[in-house]
Amino acid sequence: MTAGSAPPVDYTSLKKNFQPFLSRRVENRSLKSFWDASDISDDVIELAGGMPNERFFPIESMDLKISKVPFNDNPKWHNSFTTAHLDLGSPSELPIARSFQYAETKGLPPLLHFVKDFVSRINRPAFSDETESNWDVILSGGSNDSMFKVFETICDESTTVMIEEFTFTPAMSNVEATGAKVIPIKMNLTFDRESQGIDVEYLTQLLDNWSTGPYKDLNKPRVLYTIATGQNPTGMSVPQWKREKIYQLAQRHDFLIVEDDPYGYLYFPSYNPQEPLENPYHSSDLTTERYLNDFLMKSFLTLDTDARVIRLETFSKIFAPGLRLSFIVANKFLLQKILDLADITTRAPSGTSQAIVYSTIKAMAESNLSSSLSMKEAMFEGWIRWIMQIASKYNHRKNLTLKALYETESYQAGQFTVMEPSAGMFIIIKINWGNFDRPDDLPQQMDILDKFLLKNGVKVVLGYKMAVCPNYSKQNSDFLRLTIAYARDDDQLIEASKRIGSGIKEFFDNYKS
Amino acid sequence: MTAGSAPPVDYTSLKKNFQPFLSRRVENRSLKSFWDASDISDDVIELAGGMPNERFFPIESMDLKISKVPFNDNPKWHNSFTTAHLDLGSPSELPIARSFQYAETKGLPPLLHFVKDFVSRINRPAFSDETESNWDVILSGGSNDSMFKVFETICDESTTVMIEEFTFTPAMSNVEATGAKVIPIKMNLTFDRESQGIDVEYLTQLLDNWSTGPYKDLNKPRVLYTIATGQNPTGMSVPQWKREKIYQLAQRHDFLIVEDDPYGYLYFPSYNPQEPLENPYHSSDLTTERYLNDFLMKSFLTLDTDARVIRLETFSKIFAPGLRLSFIVANKFLLQKILDLADITTRAPSGTSQAIVYSTIKAMAESNLSSSLSMKEAMFEGWIRWIMQIASKYNHRKNLTLKALYETESYQAGQFTVMEPSAGMFIIIKINWGNFDRPDDLPQQMDILDKFLLKNGVKVVLGYKMAVCPNYSKQNSDFLRLTIAYARDDDQLIEASKRIGSGIKEFFDNYKS
Repeated sequence: MTAGSAPPVDYTSLKKNFQPFLSRRVENRSLKSFWDASDISDDVIELAGGMPNERFFPIESMDLKISKVPFNDNPKWHNSFTTAHLDLGSPSELPIARSFQYAETKGLPPLLHFVKDFVSRINRPAFSDETESNWDVILSGGSNDSMFKVFETICDESTTVMIEEFTFTPAMSNVEATGAKVIPIKMNLTFDRESQGIDVEYLTQLLDNWSTGPYKDLNKPRVLYTIATGQNPTGMSVPQWKREKIYQLAQRHDFLIVEDDPYGYLYFPSYNPQEPLENPYHSSDLTTERYLNDFLMKSFLTLDTDARVIRLETFSKIFAPGLRLSFIVANKFLLQKILDLADITTRAPSGTSQAIVYSTIKAMAESNLSSSLSMKEAMFEGWIRWIMQIASKYNHRKNLTLKALYETESYQAGQFTVMEPSAGMFIIIKINWGNFDRPDDLPQQMDILDKFLLKNGVKVVLGYKMAVCPNYSKQNSDFLRLTIAYARDDDQLIEASKRIGSGIKEFFDNYKS
Repeated sequence: MTAGSAPPVDYTSLKKNFQPFLSRRVENRSLKSFWDASDISDDVIELAGGMPNERFFPIESMDLKISKVPFNDNPKWHNSFTTAHLDLGSPSELPIARSFQYAETKGLPPLLHFVKDFVSRINRPAFSDETESNWDVILSGGSNDSMFKVFETICDESTTVMIEEFTFTPAMSNVEATGAKVIPIKMNLTFDRESQGIDVEYLTQLLDNWSTGPYKDLNKPRVLYTIATGQNPTGMSVPQWKREKIYQLAQRHDFLIVEDDPYGYLYFPSYNPQEPLENPYHSSDLTTERYLNDFLMKSFLTLDTDARVIRLETFSKIFAPGLRLSFIVANKFLLQKILDLADITTRAPSGTSQAIVYSTIKAMAESNLSSSLSMKEAMFEGWIRWIMQIASKYNHRKNLTLKALYETESYQAGQFTVMEPSAGMFIIIKINWGNFDRPDDLPQQMDILDKFLLKNGVKVVLGYKMAVCPNYSKQNSDFLRLTIAYARDDDQLIEASKRIGSGIKEFFDNYKS
């Protein structure tokens, strides 16, 4: 497969192109089903499948009270709540009789259709043909489970996987469990949105000169794992021009891109120091269309003429993590291999979680249904509006926290820089060493700083603990990651920011003294 | 480790004894966590964990209507329903703020405690010490997921796994995906409860003479996987005396026993031809204690002085399959390795499923709470009562089906034998070839029979499709598996039984004619 080749639209060419990416273990996987899933006519009595009749389930019905507004506690907003009722027969397309029963490993059809439509509207793969039949979506049990299934399918002892030098380190555990090797990819740590994230120059040099480079003893990478938007821990997003360059490198050096995107919908407009709490999400002319087109970063899928991108999304950040519900988007050949693994391991994600998500999205749509929209459109529109409210709240928290950090004595003394995030749940704070040299024992010094922060009453994550290779990233690890997601309210974020300022100031007051 | 050695009560001896059973891949598994899970005091603000505040979840509350009686549709039974209310703060020990949040991989504590107590009361491991600290339970995402995690932990290319010659074949897929080899273990297919199930003579000979036996080119088995009670597909249960022999073999030949027990609670008293619909579950003197002591088969755990048994249970058959919720019982060393795998792959099972199960069990307890019972006892008692009702219903369905089968012309002409099941969801029907020789092309003939059954309007599973090695089990595969679990009602089971009779009769009417 070479750059610029015609899109591999059919299954035969997908198979030819992507078979070489499969792990050694894939061949041992096949579901030995003893049943025959073919439909039987209504007058045949089913005594084959070992499924309990739904009347054996102790749950007769479930009623959900759904908040249409996050942090909804204004009792006057009667219409800010809605409800959903589920029972053995209702909603007709996904009643309890279905969602509490054994079900298709790939996900229950009504939710699956919603999700494919959702992806198709926002990040339709560039290799998609008119029938949309060469790509698909499967549900999975949270992004960690998605990752596991993806890496088990495309990685083994012979595989080298590239990962941003700072990352959600459990992803590494996941890769390494397959026997594959992980190498760190240099990032530009800056709040300049046009240059932040993966260092494309570095990546190009590394790949173009692999055989003479630092990892020449490893096989050339077959996979790039990237959290390209609102990255964890940095909050940075790879700008569009870099995405294009990275995709071209993927074509030239023939690697797959695993794009993990749990945070992307939480987009942050730039901070306005003149008006710190300005929130463009509150603007009356912010339509869902504008949010999707002007705010959100586009997935690598939208550049993917070759079908080499695997995208992971999750309901954890925009609905709830306890659902353990996520989805994987990929070309049909690779996705089938991922599904083969699910078939013999986890099988389907929780049907109760699927039912709750589906019913909530549907209830939000119904409570806003206008005559001009079909149910399908209303569900999409309603869900995007919910997501925008979550994003708006995160944006407010981000602004509030930046403002409070900037007001600290420590900041004003130049002791730290805030890497204003472009999306997500995290803010990183880079320590400025000023007249001091950057310490040789950076991790130890950061541990000391951490003690001062705890003493001041705030708990954060130290950057060096999220380095793929602490030695490689030694020069860059003098940062703290804080999350704006968990705090109770604005006051707590403001208080925490003050404490961070005090902690850093105390650290320097005691530094080398 | 040899037979009769002192129980390995502490972690050090568990480690020494069971380290050799770990798969090659275990060593690659370690969660690279960047967070520090230590408790922080209340006055420290948490900005570390990337968890959304629970007020970001769109679900404000969930109300469950719970049926205390399966197939509950008598509107007069007001008190046959109860309810459970869940909201962000309630129930206090497992509110939505917890169950919808990121959570412990091993399961949410309130449910986990219930489950450990449950196992401890019914099948306390023989190796357990007074503190119960050398064994534990973890939750998992359905028994298929449990199996996967267990086999990935104890199997690799070097492992031979013994499985009953007929089995739930996806279990084989699960084993084979690790690279391990599966060999079939001969079963006695009989309705005599004292001799049915694994052929212990065969097993003894096979293991004692391994180096000259049919599988001498494989490594000696390190694992026996067995569905010892209400086996799938046969409905048979390994009697107690055989369990003791098998456990002794496990000690002598040093293998682990993976006991998969999804069906064991559905115990069937013997069929009474004089009074076919007699149901001992309806007897007024059937206490929960009698059910547990006199009805249920005891787990291999209760014989397990060495800590070599891994037990799998699930909520699928006694609550609902769509929950994807199960649990694994094992010694703490092996269980930790299984948990390590969960930590880097699926993580926790669905919190919503856990919340629904916990709240249901608690609501059942509350609605029956008497002053003499603690909440813990009431939950145990209430849940067993629910399980007994499920078992009662299954027993009724079994009796009804046997009666209807025995009334068919085909049965009375001696064309089939019913292997009356001792537990579970399945009945197998053995074809009697009578004056004919057993056909050489048995699978083909069974396929023809299947067509006659479908033509008569009933769908079943053919025995040969559930053989571990169809060639090995060729002589025994002339049976049909039918399930009594899914049918709508009594009438449908009676009608299906008639159709089975007609289908078999038509098959023979056309056989070799």
